[in-house]
Amino acid sequence: MLERIRIVLIGTSHPGNIGAVARAMHNMGLADLCLVAPRCDVVTQESISRASGADHLLHQARVVETLEEALSDATLAVGASARSRTLPWPMVSPRELGTRLAGECRADNARVALVFGREDSGLTNAELQRCHAHVHIPTNEAFSSLNLAAAVQVVAYECRLAWLDNQAAPTEVEVDDELATAEELERYFEHLERTLIAIDFHDPAKPRQLMARLRRLYLRARVEKMEMNILRGILTATEKASNDQAR
Amino acid sequence: MLERIRIVLIGTSHPGNIGAVARAMHNMGLADLCLVAPRCDVVTQESISRASGADHLLHQARVVETLEEALSDATLAVGASARSRTLPWPMVSPRELGTRLAGECRADNARVALVFGREDSGLTNAELQRCHAHVHIPTNEAFSSLNLAAAVQVVAYECRLAWLDNQAAPTEVEVDDELATAEELERYFEHLERTLIAIDFHDPAKPRQLMARLRRLYLRARVEKMEMNILRGILTATEKASNDQAR
Repeated sequence: MLERIRIVLIGTSHPGNIGAVARAMHNMGLADLCLVAPRCDVVTQESISRASGADHLLHQARVVETLEEALSDATLAVGASARSRTLPWPMVSPRELGTRLAGECRADNARVALVFGREDSGLTNAELQRCHAHVHIPTNEAFSSLNLAAAVQVVAYECRLAWLDNQAAPTEVEVDDELATAEELERYFEHLERTLIAIDFHDPAKPRQLMARLRRLYLRARVEKMEMNILRGILTATEKASNDQAR
Repeated sequence: MLERIRIVLIGTSHPGNIGAVARAMHNMGLADLCLVAPRCDVVTQESISRASGADHLLHQARVVETLEEALSDATLAVGASARSRTLPWPMVSPRELGTRLAGECRADNARVALVFGREDSGLTNAELQRCHAHVHIPTNEAFSSLNLAAAVQVVAYECRLAWLDNQAAPTEVEVDDELATAEELERYFEHLERTLIAIDFHDPAKPRQLMARLRRLYLRARVEKMEMNILRGILTATEKASNDQAR
């Protein structure tokens, strides 16, 4: 289970925090670290010092330019969020997340991405809307901004507890049909938007959160690969019908 | 409940860690920080920077010379321990600790001290034997040493969850008789040792963990003030009888 969990950090600006995240991950048995457009070097004297013996995670970390790349093979993406957003999204506590991951990680292609934002401003709405759910760490309302490594520590701790529980009481493996990956979902959302424009349902100049609402719906539904093929087929058929009409 | 919980750091050597602890505490709603013989300054540019807005905890932190002072009014002391010790002590997980604290904090004079050791070497056996119980954060066995602030973060997070649970489901307040404080217990242990020497039961030159075993027993029992008076009375009576005998 733990080897299927990836920590994704977006736009991190302090090498010390990256090092401290690596230490927290290794302490809890996580190893897959991915940095999206970091605003600092990843392997520095400071990050190695703060990793305190977990610097192999820094050396083997993947650095990518976009969240899309970090999530390409993910079957579940969960974004850390301190604030409630304009468009409410499925919310889980770190504890619920841990419990859920034990089940999630059973599928053969399961790959869970836990996404953490910038030290100063967290995740953007667009980034959060790429996630199936948001995880909120309960904090003092008057002082809610956790240090990045502290947030990773709490979530990774809950992952480890869930894993330990799972080890203690092994249950029958129930492999569902394979889930669509984040990349497949993104291609679907692009296709969907093109199609909705083509059929004059959607005006990108007046978006009124249409695509965000559709994202929330499909992400919540945990679309399987087979279903994804069907949905894509419907869009292709819709486009074709719309073109035929326009001729 | 949260206002009755004190974080005690022993022999901390990095101001950055003290600042990060202050931030983690304030994030989780804890405010009572006590430093025992720190090996660095508490209020520095680095500690203020890492506290990231929680520096009032640094300014109001109490600095003392001995663990005894930090625990003088504590009714429950729990020490963070990574290793199993020669003499096994009552062990709780952070989750069990949280659950237990909700009950503990009901008594009028309740004061809980959570004790964390040095960055490089943790708590000594003598320090751990001043605690009623030890808390162990589950970690990767191959890489078990958490950063100090990360350890405080996890334990404080469990305190906050327990507090939130308690808020959600208020139960009937059951105030037990008042518990003896750590200072009263220490005076008792000194008196006990003197008495055991006086009656030739205990030879400090060959201690064979006698006092440690007795400590464990009485700390586990959670002695009440009234019972403490009785135990002290027995010792005084024993000493008197032994003196009479010697004459």
